[in-house]
Amino acid sequence: MKKLEEKILKDGVVKGTEILKVDSFVNHQIDTSLMAEMAEEIARLFDNEKITKVLTIEASGIAFAVEVGRVLGVPAVFAKKSKTSNMSGDSYCTKIKSFTHNTTYDVIVSKPYISASDNVLIVDDFLAVGNALNGLIDIVHQAGAKVAGCGIIIEKGFQKGGDKLREKGVRVESLAIVESMDGDKNEIVFRH
Amino acid sequence: MKKLEEKILKDGVVKGTEILKVDSFVNHQIDTSLMAEMAEEIARLFDNEKITKVLTIEASGIAFAVEVGRVLGVPAVFAKKSKTSNMSGDSYCTKIKSFTHNTTYDVIVSKPYISASDNVLIVDDFLAVGNALNGLIDIVHQAGAKVAGCGIIIEKGFQKGGDKLREKGVRVESLAIVESMDGDKNEIVFRH
Repeated sequence: MKKLEEKILKDGVVKGTEILKVDSFVNHQIDTSLMAEMAEEIARLFDNEKITKVLTIEASGIAFAVEVGRVLGVPAVFAKKSKTSNMSGDSYCTKIKSFTHNTTYDVIVSKPYISASDNVLIVDDFLAVGNALNGLIDIVHQAGAKVAGCGIIIEKGFQKGGDKLREKGVRVESLAIVESMDGDKNEIVFRH
Repeated sequence: MKKLEEKILKDGVVKGTEILKVDSFVNHQIDTSLMAEMAEEIARLFDNEKITKVLTIEASGIAFAVEVGRVLGVPAVFAKKSKTSNMSGDSYCTKIKSFTHNTTYDVIVSKPYISASDNVLIVDDFLAVGNALNGLIDIVHQAGAKVAGCGIIIEKGFQKGGDKLREKGVRVESLAIVESMDGDKNEIVFRH
C-alpha cells in the first residue's frame, strides 16, 4: 500500500537493521484516518472470503482489528495476555514467545467468542518471526474454526515469519513488507 | 444511550453488586457496529469543543479511542502500562491504582504525542472510582495541555468516580450510568 510505505519512510524510525518504530502513527499514537484506510484495504483483499470474525492480540493489534471488523461488518476479538495459565476450561489458551522481550506468555480467548462455524481473519500490526500469528492460528484451530488468512500492517520480510506461513498454505496479506533496513544509512527497502 | 442500555441488559453479566462483565461486546469481543455508534454519540456531545486528540489507556480503552478519533478526525493516543518507572525523561509518567487488581502501575505517554496546544478528550470503556481517568488527566496537565472532558462507555455511578470528577469541574459524559445492580436479582438500574 503506497500510502503506508510513504508514511513509514516519512515517520518511521529505524534502529539498526531489525527495529522499526512506528509509535507515532500505529502503536502508541494512532493515525485514525490512515488506520481506517488500511482496514478498508485489508477488507477489500478478503472481500470474497465471507469472514465472520476478526481476531488479534492485545494491545497494539486492537486498533486495526476494530477497524477491519467495522468495515467487514463483523465482531473483533482480542486475545488477552495472561500471567497465569488458565486452567478453568472456559478459555482457549496457547503460549506465545515474544521475540522482542524474549519471554513466553499465555494467551487466552474465552470459548464463546470463537465457534466452529467461524471463518476467522487474523490481523496484527507487525509480523516478524510469526510467533503471535502461530499462537492465534492455534487458538482458531482449537475452536475447530477456519483461518481465512492473516492481514498485517507491516511485515518484516527479512525475519521470514510471513514466508513460512505462506509455505504452509496460510494466506498472508501485508500492507507493507520491509525487505531490509539500515538505521545508519536511514534506508528502508520494501518488497514489491 | 438507549441502545447501549438495552445491550447491557441483554448481554451484560452482573456478579454480586459491583461487577458488570461486558466481555461479549466491549472488552474482549467487540461489537464493532455498536462501538462505531457509541463513538459517534461521544463525538456529537463534544462536537463544539475543537478536540485535537483522544487519549485512553491500554488495552480495553483502545477500541473506543480509535473510533472516537476517527469520527472526530483526530489522532488517538493510548497510554502504556509499564512495569518499571520510566526515568529517561522522554515520557510523561503517572501512577494508577487498579481498583480491580489492587495493584499500582506506572503509565507512560511519549512526550511528542501530547503537546501544550492540545485539547484532549479522554475516553475509556469503564469509569468506577476514577483512578485511571485521574492518572490520564495528570498526564495531560504535565504536558500543559487542556482536558476537554471525559467520554465513557459505562460509568458505575455507585462507585462515585464520575461524580467526584464533575464536582471538580471536569466534564464527564457517560453513555450509560449504572446506579445500582444486583446479580442475584439479575437487576440493573440506570441513572437518567
